[in-house]
Amino acid sequence: MSSNLYNQYQQLLQKIADVKYASAVLQWDQETYIPAKGGEIRGRQIATLSEVAHEQFISEKFGNILQQLLEINSLSDIEKRNVELSWYDYNKAKKLPADFVRNMSEAVNKSFYAWLNARKENNFSVFQPYLQQIVDFKKQEADLLGYDKHPYDALMNDYDKGLNTSITDELFASLKPELLLLLNKIKNASQVESGFLNQSFDKKIQWNLGIEMLKRIHFDFEAGRQDISEHPFTTNFSSRDVRVTTRIDENDFGNMLWSCLHEAGHALYEQGLPAEQYGMPLGEYCSLSIHESQSRLWENCIGRGLPFWKHHYQLLKESFPQQFKNVSVESFYKGINKVEPSFIRTEADELTYHFHVMIRYEIEKQLLEGSIVTKDIPALWNELYKNYLGITVPDDKTGCLQDVHWSHGSFGYFATYSIGSLYAAQFYATICKQNLSLEQQIEQGNTLPVWQWLQQHIYPFGRYYSSEALCKIATGETLNSRYFIELMNKKYSTIYEI
Amino acid sequence: MSSNLYNQYQQLLQKIADVKYASAVLQWDQETYIPAKGGEIRGRQIATLSEVAHEQFISEKFGNILQQLLEINSLSDIEKRNVELSWYDYNKAKKLPADFVRNMSEAVNKSFYAWLNARKENNFSVFQPYLQQIVDFKKQEADLLGYDKHPYDALMNDYDKGLNTSITDELFASLKPELLLLLNKIKNASQVESGFLNQSFDKKIQWNLGIEMLKRIHFDFEAGRQDISEHPFTTNFSSRDVRVTTRIDENDFGNMLWSCLHEAGHALYEQGLPAEQYGMPLGEYCSLSIHESQSRLWENCIGRGLPFWKHHYQLLKESFPQQFKNVSVESFYKGINKVEPSFIRTEADELTYHFHVMIRYEIEKQLLEGSIVTKDIPALWNELYKNYLGITVPDDKTGCLQDVHWSHGSFGYFATYSIGSLYAAQFYATICKQNLSLEQQIEQGNTLPVWQWLQQHIYPFGRYYSSEALCKIATGETLNSRYFIELMNKKYSTIYEI
Repeated sequence: MSSNLYNQYQQLLQKIADVKYASAVLQWDQETYIPAKGGEIRGRQIATLSEVAHEQFISEKFGNILQQLLEINSLSDIEKRNVELSWYDYNKAKKLPADFVRNMSEAVNKSFYAWLNARKENNFSVFQPYLQQIVDFKKQEADLLGYDKHPYDALMNDYDKGLNTSITDELFASLKPELLLLLNKIKNASQVESGFLNQSFDKKIQWNLGIEMLKRIHFDFEAGRQDISEHPFTTNFSSRDVRVTTRIDENDFGNMLWSCLHEAGHALYEQGLPAEQYGMPLGEYCSLSIHESQSRLWENCIGRGLPFWKHHYQLLKESFPQQFKNVSVESFYKGINKVEPSFIRTEADELTYHFHVMIRYEIEKQLLEGSIVTKDIPALWNELYKNYLGITVPDDKTGCLQDVHWSHGSFGYFATYSIGSLYAAQFYATICKQNLSLEQQIEQGNTLPVWQWLQQHIYPFGRYYSSEALCKIATGETLNSRYFIELMNKKYSTIYEI
Repeated sequence: MSSNLYNQYQQLLQKIADVKYASAVLQWDQETYIPAKGGEIRGRQIATLSEVAHEQFISEKFGNILQQLLEINSLSDIEKRNVELSWYDYNKAKKLPADFVRNMSEAVNKSFYAWLNARKENNFSVFQPYLQQIVDFKKQEADLLGYDKHPYDALMNDYDKGLNTSITDELFASLKPELLLLLNKIKNASQVESGFLNQSFDKKIQWNLGIEMLKRIHFDFEAGRQDISEHPFTTNFSSRDVRVTTRIDENDFGNMLWSCLHEAGHALYEQGLPAEQYGMPLGEYCSLSIHESQSRLWENCIGRGLPFWKHHYQLLKESFPQQFKNVSVESFYKGINKVEPSFIRTEADELTYHFHVMIRYEIEKQLLEGSIVTKDIPALWNELYKNYLGITVPDDKTGCLQDVHWSHGSFGYFATYSIGSLYAAQFYATICKQNLSLEQQIEQGNTLPVWQWLQQHIYPFGRYYSSEALCKIATGETLNSRYFIELMNKKYSTIYEI
């Protein structure tokens, strides 16, 4: 009887997943292969699929099955956890009335085009009234979802269940002074050379190199593929079909290379999620913070490390013999880790990146609590860039208009980027501690131990644990910024001889 | 009030179209880019979308709206026709119980794999029991759908509303003796040379040539694209996003070229359907016969004609100077029209092709009326190939196992291929009659008059007219095999000097 009911629940949820994944296929196609005139209708096709999935999910039928399952004692641990998580998702979804969702979605749609126009005109005030509307919706959303202390907590919780402003404030408070100290030391040290990354690099050779690097770090091309899109991303339609994209700039070799490693980190996580839990909570990723930890672990902890390049640099030299002729692997390593305060988050180095995130976090928090309004954004933005990075933002496009997130209504997202880096550093430190010869193995081109550790400690659990619990079990302690700070200090003290 | 109701109807139907087109995107991806391990889950995702679309379509809510609309007098002609056609579709869909559809779909799925295995073992008996199940389902389907004279009519009607065995028997009866006569004359004439098509042709150059040919015959690459797949096909997700595929065989130049022209004919039709009727019956193609007429008009009437190549042959010579060095345009024209009885339908020439179709038509008809059973197929198949084409089928793979259609449960489909050719010839004859300098214009590379005629007489009507009525309006008379026979006689009398 109970197994019958669980089957019913599973069948319903998997059908909803079918529809959601179908929507993901349509979005992937929209970013990669859709012809110019196909975009308009595609928007409505995607919207219809979201509506169908949402309607089925919040149906009374589904709610009733869940309620009955909650009272059954004979479920296995796994089954019980799936039901609990679905019940949580169900109640959360029911909190937002259909009208509210539709109105916000329409506001978001308009706001995205306003953002595009504002960027074209390089003028925040074109975007501002639309953004204010989004912020007002987000405040309502926070109220509807509910929170204990801070309205922003309700939104952060959406990307990482359990994450909130208290935790983040504390992490950033420990991070900020250390990074500022390090940044100041670097500013006063003699600088490193990175110009070799900006020669001309044949696009086709770059593409082949990217594919080879994906293979080398264990991306399964039988369960995924890579394509070109304007902005690199990872998506999946099951754990057996995980797609990454990259972009190739002829004059910026690093752009392609680290986007490949970054997206591959995301993709390995998706390919590693338990296939038999297709469509179920335990088949889904833990949180955006943990997802981001996976991309940053491969992109930064490994992909910007000297051990990794001691082995793989040979491939780069073979692919571009002219461009790297006079660049030793040590100079290459230094160049790819050059620190320099800059305006654009997505182009920032591993250190200054986090100031970009903290600035956005602070602004979002104040918008949500109402201590500022959207009109205050440009001045505050520019002031914070001056304070943290010592640079003067020249215009809105280089400043507060650079990210798409706000126009999409994504508030509460940015912090997961930095928190992902902290998790990555803590995971990497743990792997190193458990395997003292790890970096020698990586020097020999063997990253299998890293992948195997992730297969054991991260991938198989899906959403079984919260980010916090997963970290505790995998590393022995909850998230701590110390590992990231140590990693940064160690790296830059060698590179900048400080 | 009535416009309100019509809007409701339109919104519902367009949402159903969104889901159907989403399913088409998933299928397109499955044929082009899906990684090996992604196929299994993709099958269930597509099935779920079909189910969702079907459920919404046969819902009581939708039926009620239609019934109310049928009684309203204030609808425009266009609106009225949409409602009529939806009402017809709705009632037809309701005739097949959900259980029946699911069971048949499962049988089809198993039968497809049985067919693959049977082909691997080159043994029809591996497929036979599964095929018999499909035939039994198809007989039931015919009974559920209803018919006047012959059960096969119910199935043919599914692909071309109004088409039936009486019409087809009559058309084939007029066609068969004429084609047999012509074939016998050709067999006794001196043969033409076509070996130049089977040299080695660089795949990349073939691809570029195919793209150029698509452009030359007006395919809009802003509203479509071409990709590679194992079997060429055309699909669409709106009239602004129409996708064709081709395959490239290094040693068979014609394979790519005429598949491009064939699929482009389908695609021009889809791109020409009225965009403002998205998701509505009048935004859909008239029938499979008319669809096929569009592909065959461009592939054969134009794309295998001397006038066309007098202009475009230059491009082929530039692309493959070595391969076509000693081939004049007249020899090229003769070679691409070589007639030769052969075993495989999809590789047949324009004349013998129709015997392949008639054989399948006769077998399907007898299966449906119960005068044969599936066990009788191989013997009957081989006998008919001997009778019509004078060739001895060596094995099942080259014989009755060659087409995928039966394993898909597609019965009643084949005739539309030949009937499409007849329509194409009749349309082409009409265009020529109305524009006496047409072939001179084509000789100068100008196929615009053909496209414009189709834009005026075929594309804009969607399903407004039946195939029969559309033909009558466009050409002044109902379908008549005379035009095709004349075209064949004219073509082959020159080529074979008979």
